[in-house]
Parts: sequence; C-alpha cells; structure tokens
Amino acid sequence: MNYGTLYGVGVGPGAPDLLTLRAVATLKRADVLALPRSSDYGASMAWRIIEPAVGKINGQERLFLTFPMSKEPARVRRAWDAAFVKIGERLESGKSVAFATEGDPSLYSTFGYLLREAPRRWPGIRIEVTPGVSSIAAVPAALGMPLADGLERIAIIPANYGVDDLAAILGAFDTTILMKIGSEMPRVVAALERAGLIDKAAYVAKATMPEQKIVTDLRSVRAERGDCFAMVVVARGERKGVLAGDVPPEAALTGVEPA
Amino acid sequence: MNYGTLYGVGVGPGAPDLLTLRAVATLKRADVLALPRSSDYGASMAWRIIEPAVGKINGQERLFLTFPMSKEPARVRRAWDAAFVKIGERLESGKSVAFATEGDPSLYSTFGYLLREAPRRWPGIRIEVTPGVSSIAAVPAALGMPLADGLERIAIIPANYGVDDLAAILGAFDTTILMKIGSEMPRVVAALERAGLIDKAAYVAKATMPEQKIVTDLRSVRAERGDCFAMVVVARGERKGVLAGDVPPEAALTGVEPA
Repeated sequence: MNYGTLYGVGVGPGAPDLLTLRAVATLKRADVLALPRSSDYGASMAWRIIEPAVGKINGQERLFLTFPMSKEPARVRRAWDAAFVKIGERLESGKSVAFATEGDPSLYSTFGYLLREAPRRWPGIRIEVTPGVSSIAAVPAALGMPLADGLERIAIIPANYGVDDLAAILGAFDTTILMKIGSEMPRVVAALERAGLIDKAAYVAKATMPEQKIVTDLRSVRAERGDCFAMVVVARGERKGVLAGDVPPEAALTGVEPA
Repeated sequence: MNYGTLYGVGVGPGAPDLLTLRAVATLKRADVLALPRSSDYGASMAWRIIEPAVGKINGQERLFLTFPMSKEPARVRRAWDAAFVKIGERLESGKSVAFATEGDPSLYSTFGYLLREAPRRWPGIRIEVTPGVSSIAAVPAALGMPLADGLERIAIIPANYGVDDLAAILGAFDTTILMKIGSEMPRVVAALERAGLIDKAAYVAKATMPEQKIVTDLRSVRAERGDCFAMVVVARGERKGVLAGDVPPEAALTGVEPA
C-alpha cells in the first residue's frame, strides 16, 4: 500500500518564533495537521504555537486529537486507538500527516507512541522526524544559566514516577533536571534541602511562553503543584569546564551503582 | 556604560533549516556576528550553518574567533582572552554582538564561558540567549528512536573526561548519551559489551549534516576516533511509557549511590 508520509514535528517549547524553518515548511506542506490537545473542550497548545507562523491553509485539514493527561494505561490506550484510526484513514488515502508535538519529538513526547506503532500498523510507511527546541534548552536559556560545561554530567528524571533515590542522583551528577513535577514538589524540595542544594535549584514553568514563571527560592513553591510544562533544574556548578581550570578531569564523579 | 546587547544564539546541529525563526531574526539584526572556528585557517561551522538563511548583510561585521579544541586550560584561556578583547571593543562602542554557537547555547557550548564572564567584564550588560536544537534532539530524530518516554531516565556524560564508571551508569539509567567521544571509543565499546548493551547502542556523527553517519553495530567502529560532533546513544527501552503498560511505575530503578 502507498501510504502518505508521516511527519513528527517538534514545535518547540512555546514561543512561536522558536519553530525551526524546517518545522514551518513541513507543517505548511502537509495535507493534514494532527494537533494533540489534553481535552475535547480545551485548546491545542501545539496549534497555539504554530498558528502565527503556519496559519490556516486552504485545503489543509486540522485534525484535533485528544490525549488525556493520565498515567492509566487503559485510558491512554483508548485515546491512542481512536487517534490511530483517524490518522490511519488519512495515511491510507495517501495523504501526508504532520503530527505537531510540543518541544522535541524524541523527549517524553506524545509522538513517541506513534513513532513506535506506525511501522506495525502501516508497514513500509515513510516517517520523518523534525527535531525541535526542547524545554531542556529553553529553561536554561530563560535562566541565563548553562546546563553543563566541560566534564559536567547531567541526569534527567521524570519526577512524577517517584523521587525516592533523588538524593543519590543529586550527589552523583553535576546537573539534575526534574521533568513532570506534578504532585512531587514537596518531596523534591525536601530532598534538595537535605542535600544542601536548595540554593542551587530553580523552578521554571512555561518557559518562553507569555506566562513564563521563574522561581529561584524553591521554598516558596514547596506546596505548589508543578505545572505540566514545568521543570526543576539543579546545577551544582562546581566543575565548570576547561576554562575554570580549578578541577582536574580526574575529579570525575564515581560511585554510581547499578540497579 | 551603555554596552550593546550580547546575544548567544543556538544555530542547531548542522542543517541550515534547523535554525529557529528567532535565531534568523536575531542574527540578521545584530551589528556584529561572532563566529567561532577551531583554527585560524579553517571554516567556521557556525557560519556554514547560518549563511544560507542569514547571508552577508551590508554593514554587518563577521568577526571570526578561533577556539582550539583543547583540554589545556592555558591554551583555552589564551584564546578566550583574545576573544573577550575583540568582543568587548564592539560592545563598548554600543554595538550588539550575536555569538553564533552550534547546537544549543546551554549544553557544552562555547558560549557558556562568555555567558559566565560577560557580567564581570561588562557590568550591567544585557544578555539574551536563544535556545537551539541540540544534538540531543537531532541524533534521536536521525535514528527514528525516541530518547525517553514515560518513566524513563536519561544520563548525559561527556566521554572524553573518562568512562570508568560507565557500567554503573548504564545499569542505573534507561538511556545513556555519551557526548564528546574522542579517543574513548574503544573503552566505550568494551563497556557496552560487558553490560550486554552493545546491540542497544548507536553511534551518530554529524547528525543532520550532509556527511551524517549512522552506525548501529558499534563493534565496527571500535578502533575509530569519535568525531567531535558525534554521540553514542544507548537506549535500554525496557520501560516504554504508559502505553507499554507492562512495567508499573514502582519498577523505577534504584540503587544509585552518591559520590
């Protein structure tokens, strides 16, 4: 069967001008834009990001797909089954479908499921992934603070799946990024206090969006529920690159034990 | 003193159309483009990336700055001292300077040094960082493989500073990214073989550039020197997101010990 091409397009962290030239061209060219949203009644963040640069194009279909924010496999699978049917109808009729995904398609992205499932459902389908500016790039830019330099090591942890071993990770890595804070904020703040790193941490929500919020005293948001576009960055900054020159490469952290 | 604005602009991993709209606008508007290169006689990769979209603009200065690839603090510092003087002359005369940096300015970027030093040298200076598509987004896109999903954890390690504890990290994280491979390739391959993860690893050099190279059998590049735009990605892929549904969140890896 000759399927249309499936594009996974990263649309960046939120500011419409952080779209890449390739993303704009791909989104304009596709027959169908697949636009995720978290409820049938809410707006699609991906559409909000791309509308200024892409606009409404004559003959192009905007296919809104609802994916509830949930960790329940059954609920998520139901939403995806419906999405697969709708996307499949378009691909099978030879139409190209561009799935617009916030941030970068390879990093905790909705598109990951589609990328894995597509070759099974539509054998031989052509898939193209357009990388985007991830929140991991946007947050340090907003803070004016490099994430890592020289010999520094980074750990990225989705906090909503538990932070029981956070103290150990904070000790073993120069920079720790906590994604998907959700209801874990009190435990994250407590772990940072215990590790003596509370003053090396910052909380950023909706980086690059008009609603961007930066909190450098995490004690003040201890009781807050982390926004779903939020992140906590902890940067020890003790081994800054070659230019710092104070710490020899031999000081590389050791002692990380396997599971 | 009224300094010109200093921009740190991520120009993405190599393909000129992976520049963001904001990067293009900022680079076109600046009085001076600061363009790093690794030798006085070689081309600037940053200029090669931006030239198609930005072009040569009347009245805009292209200031090429040489930063040798070196881990010797004295050599790096000498190059930076010369660069600070040249950039400073422009900023002090009120000109805006856009420093174009490959990938993203916050991730192992040349711009990191400038970001740290600028407020000391030019008190009160206005600095704006434009995030870019990093190689961490470009490499998985080239591989068609998500980096992480759901509850998966990521470790990012600059391999050129030693991989003695790589086995432990491979055991404790779902996805491990080795940057700056350099001469460490033999030791990286040996560690992957010992961990039984050699078939879960891929090597990508110059992702998104015409010279892009993807190697999925790392045994075949065992003796190679890692290109400086190269990366090894190891993805266990055993705990794929909510949709996989096979692994409950309680299975989160534990046992990472502090340094």
